[in-house]
Amino acid sequence: MKMEDVGAKERTERVAIATCRVRMQPRTLELIRRGKVEKGNVLEAARLAAVMAAKKTPEVVPLCHPIALTGVTADVTAEARGVEIRVQVKTVDRTGVEMEALTGACAAALTVYDMLKSQERGMVIERVQLEHKSGGRTGTWRR
Amino acid sequence: MKMEDVGAKERTERVAIATCRVRMQPRTLELIRRGKVEKGNVLEAARLAAVMAAKKTPEVVPLCHPIALTGVTADVTAEARGVEIRVQVKTVDRTGVEMEALTGACAAALTVYDMLKSQERGMVIERVQLEHKSGGRTGTWRR
Amino acid sequence: MKMEDVGAKERTERVAIATCRVRMQPRTLELIRRGKVEKGNVLEAARLAAVMAAKKTPEVVPLCHPIALTGVTADVTAEARGVEIRVQVKTVDRTGVEMEALTGACAAALTVYDMLKSQERGMVIERVQLEHKSGGRTGTWRR
Amino acid sequence: MKMEDVGAKERTERVAIATCRVRMQPRTLELIRRGKVEKGNVLEAARLAAVMAAKKTPEVVPLCHPIALTGVTADVTAEARGVEIRVQVKTVDRTGVEMEALTGACAAALTVYDMLKSQERGMVIERVQLEHKSGGRTGTWRR
Amino acid sequence: MKMEDVGAKERTERVAIATCRVRMQPRTLELIRRGKVEKGNVLEAARLAAVMAAKKTPEVVPLCHPIALTGVTADVTAEARGVEIRVQVKTVDRTGVEMEALTGACAAALTVYDMLKSQERGMVIERVQLEHKSGGRTGTWRR
Amino acid sequence: MKMEDVGAKERTERVAIATCRVRMQPRTLELIRRGKVEKGNVLEAARLAAVMAAKKTPEVVPLCHPIALTGVTADVTAEARGVEIRVQVKTVDRTGVEMEALTGACAAALTVYDMLKSQERGMVIERVQLEHKSGGRTGTWRR
Repeated sequence: MKMEDVGAKERTERVAIATCRVRMQPRTLELIRRGKVEKGNVLEAARLAAVMAAKKTPEVVPLCHPIALTGVTADVTAEARGVEIRVQVKTVDRTGVEMEALTGACAAALTVYDMLKSQERGMVIERVQLEHKSGGRTGTWRR
Repeated sequence: MKMEDVGAKERTERVAIATCRVRMQPRTLELIRRGKVEKGNVLEAARLAAVMAAKKTPEVVPLCHPIALTGVTADVTAEARGVEIRVQVKTVDRTGVEMEALTGACAAALTVYDMLKSQERGMVIERVQLEHKSGGRTGTWRR
Repeated sequence: MKMEDVGAKERTERVAIATCRVRMQPRTLELIRRGKVEKGNVLEAARLAAVMAAKKTPEVVPLCHPIALTGVTADVTAEARGVEIRVQVKTVDRTGVEMEALTGACAAALTVYDMLKSQERGMVIERVQLEHKSGGRTGTWRR
Repeated sequence: MKMEDVGAKERTERVAIATCRVRMQPRTLELIRRGKVEKGNVLEAARLAAVMAAKKTPEVVPLCHPIALTGVTADVTAEARGVEIRVQVKTVDRTGVEMEALTGACAAALTVYDMLKSQERGMVIERVQLEHKSGGRTGTWRR
Repeated sequence: MKMEDVGAKERTERVAIATCRVRMQPRTLELIRRGKVEKGNVLEAARLAAVMAAKKTPEVVPLCHPIALTGVTADVTAEARGVEIRVQVKTVDRTGVEMEALTGACAAALTVYDMLKSQERGMVIERVQLEHKSGGRTGTWRR
Repeated sequence: MKMEDVGAKERTERVAIATCRVRMQPRTLELIRRGKVEKGNVLEAARLAAVMAAKKTPEVVPLCHPIALTGVTADVTAEARGVEIRVQVKTVDRTGVEMEALTGACAAALTVYDMLKSQERGMVIERVQLEHKSGGRTGTWRR
C-alpha cells in the first residue's frame, strides 16, 4: 500500500470532468423544481457539496495525493429523469484530478439524496463516471 | 437551508445497508484477483475507505447530523462484472444511517477506481443505492 | 490546558442563538439582492457554511467538546446596512452549544466576505455575539 | 456556485493581515492577566487556534482555494478594553490569503470566548476586518 | 475489515491514561525550561495538541468508533531525561478511550519534536503506552 | 506561537524516513501472522493508516506547514519482537517532511495497537524516531 511517487512528474495544467445522475420519480423532481423541499435549496446545496468534497478528496480516497486545486465548477440541474450532475476540476500540478471530479460528483449526488430521502428512499445514483481528462503524461482521454 | 431538528426523536437502534458496483473489463478484474495491482491490495483498501468515509459523512453531506456510529461492515468482492460493494452501518441514535452507508459505498468505489484508473479510465460506478433500512419512526424499508 | 470534565452533567436539551452582521456599502448589497455575484448565491452559501462549521466547532475551538448536534438553523438576509446572520443550534447533551452557534455565525460571515471581497475589501464583520442560551445547570441567559 | 479558476494567475508572494477584538469587562480581563483562568493559558491557546484555523480555511469557507501557507503569526494580547487579535498570513501562490487571516482571527476570538464564557457570556467579538493585503494582480490594499 | 459492533454494550463511564516520553539532550531541555524556543511555548502547544488529537482519533485510527469525549487532561512537563507526557481521557459511552489517550500522547510528543527538531533531530519518542483503563465489560486494567 | 515563515526557502526534493516498533508477546504476533485477528488485516490497515495520517500531519501537529506530499511508502511487517514500521515520505517543497514521516509511523503503530488491544493491552510503541532526512538547506541527516 503506497501513495505513488509523483515527484518526477511535471507541473502542468490538468482538467477532469465527471458526471452522474440521481434517478428519481417525477413527483420528487417536481418538489425540486417548485422549490418545495423542506430542507432547502437542493441544487445549490449539491453544488456547494461538490466543491467542498473535491477539496476533501485525499481524506476520502486513501491513496490520493493532496493537490492544490485551482478551480472547481459544479453543474447540477433537474432534467427529465432526475438530477444531472457534472463537475469540472482544474489544477496545475504533478498529478491528475480525476478523483477530485468523481468525488465531487458523488458528494453532490449524496446531497441530493439526503435532502429528498424522506420523499423517496428508492432513488438511485447512476453512472458515476469520468467524461474527460486532459494534461499530464498520458494526455487527453474522452469517454 | 437547515439541519432538521431531531431532538424530539427517540434513540433507537438503526441499521442501513447500501450497495454499488464498479463495472470494469475482465482483464482489470484479473489484476485484482491475482494481487497484481501496483498500488497495493485493492479490496482491503476499499473496505477501510468505506469505514473511514462512513465516519466522515457529516463533512461530505452538508445537512447530515453528526452521529455516533456503533458499527460498520464493508464487503468488497471481485465478482463476474466488476467489484461489488455492500456497506452496513449501525447506530443507536435519533436519526438514521442511510447517508453513512451510501457515503461508505461511494468511498469504497472511488478507492477501487483510484487504484485501477491507470489501467482503465472508463470504469463506471453503477447503481449506488439503499437496500435496506430499519429503526426509527418510519420503520423498515426494503428495496 | 484541559478539556473540562462534563461527564457528571446531565443530558438535557440545550439551545443557543448567535448573531452578527457583515457591514458593507449599498452597492455591494445590491449585487446580492439582484443575484449578480459572480461566485454564486451568497445567502445560500452562507447558510450552508454556518451549518457545516457548527459541526466542525471542536476542530476550530481547541477545548470544545465534541457534541451530537440535533439541529442547526441559519438565517442570512440582506438588510439595510449589510448582511444579518442569526444561527440557532440545538442539542441534547451534557454541555451547551454557545460555541457552535458563534462558530456557525462566523463561518457564514466569512463566506459572505469571501464571495464579495473582490468588490469591497473593507467590509467588516460586526458584533459576533450570543443572544440567548437555555438548558443546563446555569439555565437561561438572554442578552 | 463555483470555486473560481485561478490557474492562469502567477505564483507570487502574498501577505494578509486581519484583526479583531474580544470586548469584555475589566474583571474578566484581570483573570487572563493573572493567569487565573481555569481552562488554562488563554492567550497561548488563542494563538495556536489562529494558526490551526488558518490552515483549515478551505474547510470553513466553502469556495476558498486550498493554499500552501508559508507562514502564520498570531498576536493575541490583553489590552485596555479586551483581547486584541492580529493575524498575519503569508503564501507564495496563485491567490491571496485574506480569508486565511480573517478565519485565523475569528478562531482566536472564539477560543478566547470559549475559555472565559463561564465568567461572562456577554463578551462581544468586534470588528473582524482586513487591515492589509499585498501581492497579486490587485496589488497592495490598506484600510 | 470492520468497525466492531458495540451497539449492545452499555453506556458507562470509561477512563484511560496513556504516557510517553520525548528523550532529548540536556541542552535541548534547557531551551524549553528557559522559554528560549523560537517557535513558542512548547509545553502549552503540546498540551493543546494532545486535546485536539484525542478528538481526532477516529480520523487517525481507521477502525476506532467516534466517541463523545467528556474530558481530556494533558500533563506535559520537562523532567530529567526529557519531556514527560501523560494524557487522561474520559467518556460515558459504549466503548473505551484507550486509543484516544494514546493518540493524544503521540500528538503531544510529535509537537514537542516539531518545535525542537532544528536543535536536535535525534530526539526519540519512547514507550508510548497505556497505564490504566477503567469502565466497561472488561473492568479495570493497570500496567 | 507561530508557523515559521518558509516563503524564502527553495522548492527542492526532500525525503524523510521514520521508524518505530509495536512490541508485543509472541502469541499476539502469531495472530497477525496467521491472519486470525477478528478486526481484519492488521498489516494492510496499518499501512493505509500511515499514508492517510501523513497527509493529515498539519492537523495533528499544530505548527506544521501544509505540504503537497509527492509520495508515501509504508512498510509494516511482523518481526521477531513485534511489528516493525518504516514510513518514507517525499515532497518537492519549501520545508522538510520529517513530521509527516513520524506522524505516519505513529498512526500505523496506533492502528496495530487498536486492532490487537483486546488481546494484549500491555503492548508498547517503542522508539518512534527519524532515521534519515535529505534535501533543503541543512542537507542530509542520518541517525
